[in-house]
Amino acid sequence: MKKANKKLNAAIIVIGNEILSGRTQDVNVKNISTWLNDLGIKLDEVRIIPDIENIIVNTINEIRKKFNYVFTTGGIGPTHDDITAKSISKAFKVKYCYHPEAYKILEDYYEKGKFNLGRRKMAKTPQSASLIYNPSSAAPGFNIKNVYCLPGVPSILKSMLGGLNNKIIGGNKILSKTLSLRTVESEISIPLEKVQQKFKKVEIGSYPFFQQGKIGVSLVMRSTNSKLIDKCMNSVMKFVKIKKIKIIVRK
Amino acid sequence: MKKANKKLNAAIIVIGNEILSGRTQDVNVKNISTWLNDLGIKLDEVRIIPDIENIIVNTINEIRKKFNYVFTTGGIGPTHDDITAKSISKAFKVKYCYHPEAYKILEDYYEKGKFNLGRRKMAKTPQSASLIYNPSSAAPGFNIKNVYCLPGVPSILKSMLGGLNNKIIGGNKILSKTLSLRTVESEISIPLEKVQQKFKKVEIGSYPFFQQGKIGVSLVMRSTNSKLIDKCMNSVMKFVKIKKIKIIVRK
Repeated sequence: MKKANKKLNAAIIVIGNEILSGRTQDVNVKNISTWLNDLGIKLDEVRIIPDIENIIVNTINEIRKKFNYVFTTGGIGPTHDDITAKSISKAFKVKYCYHPEAYKILEDYYEKGKFNLGRRKMAKTPQSASLIYNPSSAAPGFNIKNVYCLPGVPSILKSMLGGLNNKIIGGNKILSKTLSLRTVESEISIPLEKVQQKFKKVEIGSYPFFQQGKIGVSLVMRSTNSKLIDKCMNSVMKFVKIKKIKIIVRK
Repeated sequence: MKKANKKLNAAIIVIGNEILSGRTQDVNVKNISTWLNDLGIKLDEVRIIPDIENIIVNTINEIRKKFNYVFTTGGIGPTHDDITAKSISKAFKVKYCYHPEAYKILEDYYEKGKFNLGRRKMAKTPQSASLIYNPSSAAPGFNIKNVYCLPGVPSILKSMLGGLNNKIIGGNKILSKTLSLRTVESEISIPLEKVQQKFKKVEIGSYPFFQQGKIGVSLVMRSTNSKLIDKCMNSVMKFVKIKKIKIIVRK
């Protein structure tokens, strides 16, 4: 993985009526986000939008200027509702046409005489896009400038991320430590806020949970600086001890 | 449920670093969307944004003008990272202050002497907001104009939706029928596109799936008009018969 010594961020655009309608539970956001953490790229926004061309075009053109990287999921299959490649061509004002390498990959993948019009559609990308290879089912994703287009099927998407590791320049890895406490948020909110004010460069998240009928709170401290996280954790530990709160997990 | 005889749409704003960081899998979008379908309100956009005040303010002010209803999830607890109520007050340019009824609810909920500063924070809303009652854990959500603010914990959020049924004016119920076929998308994409062109008012989604090692495609037809869905389904059935495709489920 190449590395840039600076802060890098990303956005995901989920293109899919099936997520908006409640039919399908999205899991790609979590998978991409976890992968981005390891690359040192912070996911700063997600949009879920319908399969409508002008909405895709406008969203892409707004988002690609705001973030270092943009990932889209969904809409690169063979059916009428798969309009990602066409819409992104419009957004970048380039031709939507057969990508010779994608065409070859798909032609080889299907049996002779079975490479029909629907399948050929999956070989179309914005002109000058480069391919993101698909080790699961041949049909590639593609990349143009800072926009990376991936499929919607989670298992296929996951199989394609590995191939992107060498293409994407990452930043400083985002580290995190978690402290899970047997308490409720409203018992610790005041001292915790003071710790957050002291450590402005550590992002402290507080998340209540229920576990085997008992309640608890997980405090997650995130930063690119491990020493700062440790110092922040020590400050939290001070009030945890004073309040005699039971620690469930510290990792 | 009150009903307006027109098309109504909605957006969800998920406020939460924990979703963006990949730590937590969001399920609230699916739950709210499914509930909205029954109310005849179409979910047209979702944004997932961080716990940062100016981003919340700007997103709220952009989104609330575009959609009939806006739902936010997360950020209404007692800790420093719970800034939804304060941010929404800023967006609407109203005071962020104690809501007398919310204060009373929470004061009654906690034991005497235990209604501390952190807990009192949960009684603060934008001035003039009305409450969304919480049958699970007392701390209410709130509503101001077309914006409805709900908590992030899925079980609590779900328990609060029922109370909103009588507050929200719905539209014509969005109906859907599904046809699951033992085929692949690229076998049916061309005739399916023709059906979609014929039935422009039915939204046809095509979703590949894997089931017990076999592949298939589910076609989902959505519209507020049940007769149109039936006609569209019949058109699909024609090419399914011609192509001798096995039907797995039709419902």
